[in-house]
Amino acid sequence: MSIIVQKYGGTSVGNADRIRNVARRVIAAKQAGNDVVVVVSAMGDTTDDLIKLAYQITDKPNAREADVLLSTGEMVSSTLLAMALENMDCKAISLSGTQAGIQTDSNHGRARILSINPGRIVHEIKEGNIVIVAGFQGITKSDDITTLGRGGSDTTAVALAASLGASVCERYTDVEGIFTADPRVVPEAAKLKEISYDEMLELATYGSKVMHPRAVEMGQIYSVPILVASSFNDRPGTLIHGGLMEIRNKVTAITQDMDVAKITIVGVPDMPGIAASIFAPLSKAGVSVDTIVQNASIKNITDLTFTVTKGDVEKALQIVKPIAENVGACECVADTKLAKVSIIGSGMQNTPGYASTMFSTLFAAGINIQLITTSEIRITVIIADDRANEASRALHKVFELEK
Amino acid sequence: MSIIVQKYGGTSVGNADRIRNVARRVIAAKQAGNDVVVVVSAMGDTTDDLIKLAYQITDKPNAREADVLLSTGEMVSSTLLAMALENMDCKAISLSGTQAGIQTDSNHGRARILSINPGRIVHEIKEGNIVIVAGFQGITKSDDITTLGRGGSDTTAVALAASLGASVCERYTDVEGIFTADPRVVPEAAKLKEISYDEMLELATYGSKVMHPRAVEMGQIYSVPILVASSFNDRPGTLIHGGLMEIRNKVTAITQDMDVAKITIVGVPDMPGIAASIFAPLSKAGVSVDTIVQNASIKNITDLTFTVTKGDVEKALQIVKPIAENVGACECVADTKLAKVSIIGSGMQNTPGYASTMFSTLFAAGINIQLITTSEIRITVIIADDRANEASRALHKVFELEK
Repeated sequence: MSIIVQKYGGTSVGNADRIRNVARRVIAAKQAGNDVVVVVSAMGDTTDDLIKLAYQITDKPNAREADVLLSTGEMVSSTLLAMALENMDCKAISLSGTQAGIQTDSNHGRARILSINPGRIVHEIKEGNIVIVAGFQGITKSDDITTLGRGGSDTTAVALAASLGASVCERYTDVEGIFTADPRVVPEAAKLKEISYDEMLELATYGSKVMHPRAVEMGQIYSVPILVASSFNDRPGTLIHGGLMEIRNKVTAITQDMDVAKITIVGVPDMPGIAASIFAPLSKAGVSVDTIVQNASIKNITDLTFTVTKGDVEKALQIVKPIAENVGACECVADTKLAKVSIIGSGMQNTPGYASTMFSTLFAAGINIQLITTSEIRITVIIADDRANEASRALHKVFELEK
Repeated sequence: MSIIVQKYGGTSVGNADRIRNVARRVIAAKQAGNDVVVVVSAMGDTTDDLIKLAYQITDKPNAREADVLLSTGEMVSSTLLAMALENMDCKAISLSGTQAGIQTDSNHGRARILSINPGRIVHEIKEGNIVIVAGFQGITKSDDITTLGRGGSDTTAVALAASLGASVCERYTDVEGIFTADPRVVPEAAKLKEISYDEMLELATYGSKVMHPRAVEMGQIYSVPILVASSFNDRPGTLIHGGLMEIRNKVTAITQDMDVAKITIVGVPDMPGIAASIFAPLSKAGVSVDTIVQNASIKNITDLTFTVTKGDVEKALQIVKPIAENVGACECVADTKLAKVSIIGSGMQNTPGYASTMFSTLFAAGINIQLITTSEIRITVIIADDRANEASRALHKVFELEK
């Protein structure tokens, strides 16, 4: 019998009715002939409520204590799901991260999984139980509870799937799958039947909030197919898996990111060490720099452009301006009204037609491209933010993604 | 340095302000030169809320799952207290029942503590930490979380005090101590400075809801002095301890229990096996029989009287009536308007004056005594329930308990 791991997000277990709904889905998977391991998030707003409680006590909650506090959210939802299953005459048992053998490092609040000892899970499966594991948590070697930080429950699920040799990790939330573009921007956006890990990682980075890259990366490393689907209906989701790179060669999806600002340092002397002198202090100040573009220099003078989030512009300018003056640059110019639009597809880069189609489509729409960056499977343009939706729709159409 | 164990009840940690208040008290105990281990209950109504959540899912929550669910309540309060202490620059660490080494049997919902492995607690004390232990919970040999049932957190505290060789177990709630009588019944009731374990056990059984007998018994077995005091003020509480039996010989307190009904089987043949034939079926039906009195028989015919709670009278009669008929008894008579009033004091029984003073005081007040039972340190009378308050006040006065 093959093992499948199902993961249900906080909205999917948000109240008693929804927990019963999840129980029915789990039973269906069991009745289809699988051994089922379920990972749950905390119910609805539980985690936020627990954080609020901590902040009523102190401005700086101790990280170790906060982890124990937060870990209770998933313990609650996992026991309730076990009860719901038993109430439907299905043997089930809940396990905390500790009991499930999820060993992590001791970085409280953002622990990494070091290893999984699935002995107890395997034992409970053999006993005929559906095993419910509290997501988002683990235990250190010195027996302290940790939480895994952002994307933690997804990561628990994929890690368990890898460790148990599961045939698939099914990840259910209120999202039906991965779309060719954000349906709110591009009404014709279609749900993808499948997507490669790499494409998904580009999507994740470029605005899609569907799944944390961390869990996708783990799926890729351990070759765990991940199905992203809704817990509220039975429509097919999107399967994230490998092995697509060689056989497909087209645009898969369009993403856009509206939170983009650009800073250009004009007239920078083109000499070694300049880039470091600018970006090291930014990094130190916690300003996350995304795209960096340096024009070819003319007479040893160049322009250096980089993008940050809109909220970081003022901070970045305060840091960069004195440095720019110091090295004799002419001026610093900021543009905060930008957006990023990307087309993503495995193997695109080897086929130059995609880039030219993208650029000419934007040109035909009268949209000016300010910056261009590419990866192996992605082409990104930075344009005025009030043209981003229009750009996405035009690109979606020209690459026939609605089909 | 001596270790003290402090235990704070649910009301005492009911919100952020109260948790900060508890933190200040804990720090004061530390600054007085003690190593402090703190046991906490769940905040306010948390446990009830969690139980409600379970009943939204199923009518019969699985006992193992319910224990994990309920155990989260104390984990939450213990982390918040640790945060509050750290916020006041005091090193602190919270431990779950598992981490505190509290081994129990596997009777979920009402587990008994088998042993305590205090290694981690001792280590954390040596590190200079105030150790906060989540009360009410433990872990089985097979690594499953249990809860200890009624009086659980008090039991955790006394057991830890015994295991750590603590000088005292201080148990703080919204109750100031043990009184000579219920102040709502006897306005002159005075707080006791001290009381023996035995006296406290009689009090606990006879209506005082201050502390569960289970924790008192454990205190007695391991000679742990238990201080009962309020967390909301600094007034002295009551110390429950041993070694009082020989040196004191007076009435300590009056208790009353209003939930008493009496059933008399009139004209029972006085022959072996009769009592068993009546009480075995009652026990089987879950009817808890308290006092049993059998009059001396005249011509091999006797009356058998016993008391039950008022709510159990109908059930008891249905069971007893056919049996009574069977053995040829005359009739079954029930009286549901009764109460129990007791005087309690170490060594009373050896001094007959107390009983006669009690009876003559009630006689002078025109209160008829229906039944009398005694233990080594208690004399109980059963009287009409509408005279109970009057009886308590008269007895409180004659034994000069207000002093």
